[in-house]
Amino acid sequence: MSEKCISIIFAQKPKLYHIYYMSVCNSLLAFDLKLKEKLNFMTKLTTRAEDYSKWYNELVVKADLAENSGVRGCMVIKPYGYAIWEKMRDELDRRFKETGHQNAYFPLFVPKSLFEAEEKNAEGFAKECAVVTHYRLKNDAENPGKLIVDPEARLEEELIVRPTSEAIIWNTYKNWIQSYRDLPILINQWANVVRWEMRTRLFLRTAEFLWQEGHTAHSTREEAMEETEKMLEVYADVAENVLAVPVIRGVKTPSERFAGADETYCIEAMMQDGKALQAGTSHFLGQNFAKAFDVKFTNKEGQLEYAWATSWGVSTRLMGALIMAHSDDNGLVLPPKLAPIQVVIVPIFKGEEQLNLIRKVADKIVAELKQKGISVKFDDDDQNKPGWKFAEYELKGVPVRIAMGARDLENQTVEVARRDTLTKEVKPLENIAEYISQLLDEIQDNIFRKALKFRDENITEVDTYEEFKKVLEEKGGFISAHWDGTAEEEEQIKEETKATIRCIPLDNDLEEGVSLISGKPSNQRVIFAKAY
Amino acid sequence: MSEKCISIIFAQKPKLYHIYYMSVCNSLLAFDLKLKEKLNFMTKLTTRAEDYSKWYNELVVKADLAENSGVRGCMVIKPYGYAIWEKMRDELDRRFKETGHQNAYFPLFVPKSLFEAEEKNAEGFAKECAVVTHYRLKNDAENPGKLIVDPEARLEEELIVRPTSEAIIWNTYKNWIQSYRDLPILINQWANVVRWEMRTRLFLRTAEFLWQEGHTAHSTREEAMEETEKMLEVYADVAENVLAVPVIRGVKTPSERFAGADETYCIEAMMQDGKALQAGTSHFLGQNFAKAFDVKFTNKEGQLEYAWATSWGVSTRLMGALIMAHSDDNGLVLPPKLAPIQVVIVPIFKGEEQLNLIRKVADKIVAELKQKGISVKFDDDDQNKPGWKFAEYELKGVPVRIAMGARDLENQTVEVARRDTLTKEVKPLENIAEYISQLLDEIQDNIFRKALKFRDENITEVDTYEEFKKVLEEKGGFISAHWDGTAEEEEQIKEETKATIRCIPLDNDLEEGVSLISGKPSNQRVIFAKAY
Repeated sequence: MSEKCISIIFAQKPKLYHIYYMSVCNSLLAFDLKLKEKLNFMTKLTTRAEDYSKWYNELVVKADLAENSGVRGCMVIKPYGYAIWEKMRDELDRRFKETGHQNAYFPLFVPKSLFEAEEKNAEGFAKECAVVTHYRLKNDAENPGKLIVDPEARLEEELIVRPTSEAIIWNTYKNWIQSYRDLPILINQWANVVRWEMRTRLFLRTAEFLWQEGHTAHSTREEAMEETEKMLEVYADVAENVLAVPVIRGVKTPSERFAGADETYCIEAMMQDGKALQAGTSHFLGQNFAKAFDVKFTNKEGQLEYAWATSWGVSTRLMGALIMAHSDDNGLVLPPKLAPIQVVIVPIFKGEEQLNLIRKVADKIVAELKQKGISVKFDDDDQNKPGWKFAEYELKGVPVRIAMGARDLENQTVEVARRDTLTKEVKPLENIAEYISQLLDEIQDNIFRKALKFRDENITEVDTYEEFKKVLEEKGGFISAHWDGTAEEEEQIKEETKATIRCIPLDNDLEEGVSLISGKPSNQRVIFAKAY
Repeated sequence: MSEKCISIIFAQKPKLYHIYYMSVCNSLLAFDLKLKEKLNFMTKLTTRAEDYSKWYNELVVKADLAENSGVRGCMVIKPYGYAIWEKMRDELDRRFKETGHQNAYFPLFVPKSLFEAEEKNAEGFAKECAVVTHYRLKNDAENPGKLIVDPEARLEEELIVRPTSEAIIWNTYKNWIQSYRDLPILINQWANVVRWEMRTRLFLRTAEFLWQEGHTAHSTREEAMEETEKMLEVYADVAENVLAVPVIRGVKTPSERFAGADETYCIEAMMQDGKALQAGTSHFLGQNFAKAFDVKFTNKEGQLEYAWATSWGVSTRLMGALIMAHSDDNGLVLPPKLAPIQVVIVPIFKGEEQLNLIRKVADKIVAELKQKGISVKFDDDDQNKPGWKFAEYELKGVPVRIAMGARDLENQTVEVARRDTLTKEVKPLENIAEYISQLLDEIQDNIFRKALKFRDENITEVDTYEEFKKVLEEKGGFISAHWDGTAEEEEQIKEETKATIRCIPLDNDLEEGVSLISGKPSNQRVIFAKAY
């Protein structure tokens, strides 16, 4: 059976792929890698219901977002995945600049003596640090062609590959800050960081990841606190209005705080399996780093004071949140604001002549869409059938697919398919660009509303520990319950149920109640969940 | 003497700064850090004629571009410097995408076994590698509060912090390339890399630097060679039309090739001291990495072949080229296309009322310039006098300065000063935005022409080794001379004069001659120079 025949059959009966591939093809295909790859690619994803975790892992790889590398725990972000990350980065970067921040770049390495200066921070990250000890390799005398670490090139002081940059940055700020006139310092850095995690998963937890880290210095506690909250709001804005992921803004309990912070603010999102994903954090660092690095300034009254600090970051983990919040059993669902290709046009044609007629109309649509700033691809590749292309662009999460065939040419119409709802309708060619432009807005909005509805339906208020365990076991999601404010109760619940306090919501209503285990009085509910 | 008085005196007599600062002030100022800093800042730069190298080092720091960090050989790129780098990056990135490339991201670390796979590449970089050997720190039992490397957390295989990414990327490409249909792969990465240099200088040579590295795979030698040349042309375009730095496009001699390349193309720029700076390289890697990592593909004829490769990169070193090519004894001279602030408006006023009148006019100019996509700052800070501001914006290289005072308000004029020529003229307010827009183009062009003229005046053709040494000693610059094509002659000249062959120019006219030392026949001239 030729590749062409197989493609045709499969284009018409997509559900046959999997069975066919599993049963008949293996031997037949052994000699045609390209075809095997194609079928592999078309093989249906594991469904979310079957195995949510497997579904995610498969989707990241099949949609060409990322893959594991030859380095333990480190990923390769592939071009399609990186294009989405670039769009997130640009949306964040624009907002950072609009709120008065500037980008800068600080060293990858932190000398051990600086790293240990802020004790809590050091303690928090010491267990997962990549450490550079040598600066040269030499030929291995016993194994020609092999290299070994040159023992004579040992560093006097070990260098830590930054897991976060407070230490190196505050050591620098020391020289920049003398007077209140030098404040505030509002700086952001786009960088790679390394945390030697033992269990890694693409995007969600990797030894190296990309992120941005804001590091600001202020002359008053109030101003630093305001900054902490302002940046949390920037993150929430991007999460909700760009990623279309609704988030709960909250404060972490002391045991979940960033190492070295006085207060950690966070945004928490719900994935489709009901688990929580911390999507961004903004830390009020008090004067901890100023004290550790002796950063004092002369205030308006001429007195010396320690500077006040914040730091805030989001990372390529957001890619995981994006994927797990919206995607379905057919593949990615991308909000239009992050889709590298927002619209794809697929011609349905027999022969070059028909294709040329379609191309003439398509070119016009492409030009009109581009003028509206919409990214569009006309896929006239004749190696793959329309059915194969439809499946491919569904897998890749392209928000809108336009199909055009002979009948459409005749009727001056196109078929418009939405990725989010998997619905199609026939639309007149007239004003099609305007229609698509509005449709993209509607899709962005719909994806958010759908996620919001799911999230809200999966927050359950409970008042007893029995009920808590039952809901967690049977329904999952977020549980809103009273807590006595102690680390002990928090720890016991975590140990017994694996659920942690995700946050104390910022917009909490005060409400009298008693805590789940100790029965002590509490005046507000907190959010518990199992988390990524 | 109050800060105000000093500022006024100095604004009128800038040349007094230095003397005053050196002689009278030190004790007086010891208690006012801010004022000391201000005077320090105003202190005249070392001139290029006095000490070119010192001038450069001072300028980088005083113009707030970068500074040395607490980590040996690593720099902090400050916001103003980073803003210029961001503009370079965006200009490059746009061109990479226009020529069909996509961005991706590969791991920071290269396992030693992968690193040593391509022997020449490994040999070239082994001597300057930062090596990660451990993944954890622990508390030092003997020194409370201190951390030590945990000897139990030694990595089974050492990880090299990438000095360049061919190895890790070709190890990845192995899984991406099966058939000619998978080619070409056109990928670029923006990343940090580490090369443990012993002598470092801000931007020019640092242990860690930022760069982009393109890595492409092709099915034919011709296509890879075409890519190598195409990307060299992209670099030359950015150097000349964005950085305003004229470059000579050429090929390196075998001894100056990138480790692992079959051919290295480069662009070479001349700095104001006549020395050369290699501003970008594009490598034809042949099948070296494909062979080292066993990357084969099935060609159209069904046969297995090794893939063909290129790699190409430019780095934050371009910042050094930019600074050293154009700047003068007053500070930076930035081509408008890279200036974070293209136009600054300085009001000259007495009292709030006059300022308000000026502000009204300035706001209109600001709005008009912004609409043309020109970045503009209205500096109405009343802490600093106009004279101080003039000096500051000269130091920072702002291309156009507009000054407005009471007389200008009366006459409906402004004073427009050009940074590149240090000239001023009074211009009518009418159509000022249009005038400024054209002026920025003219400045961009003039900066390039000036550098080109200087470069061309400092290329000398010589035909004897005596003459060569004399010109190099007395005039410097580039020397165009015949070479016998041997590594021996090249090495001898380098040892005796410190000049190296920068490149064999691509647009060389063939010309019969005899080489400098051996007297062997040669059919073209090559470019010699001392280099950064």
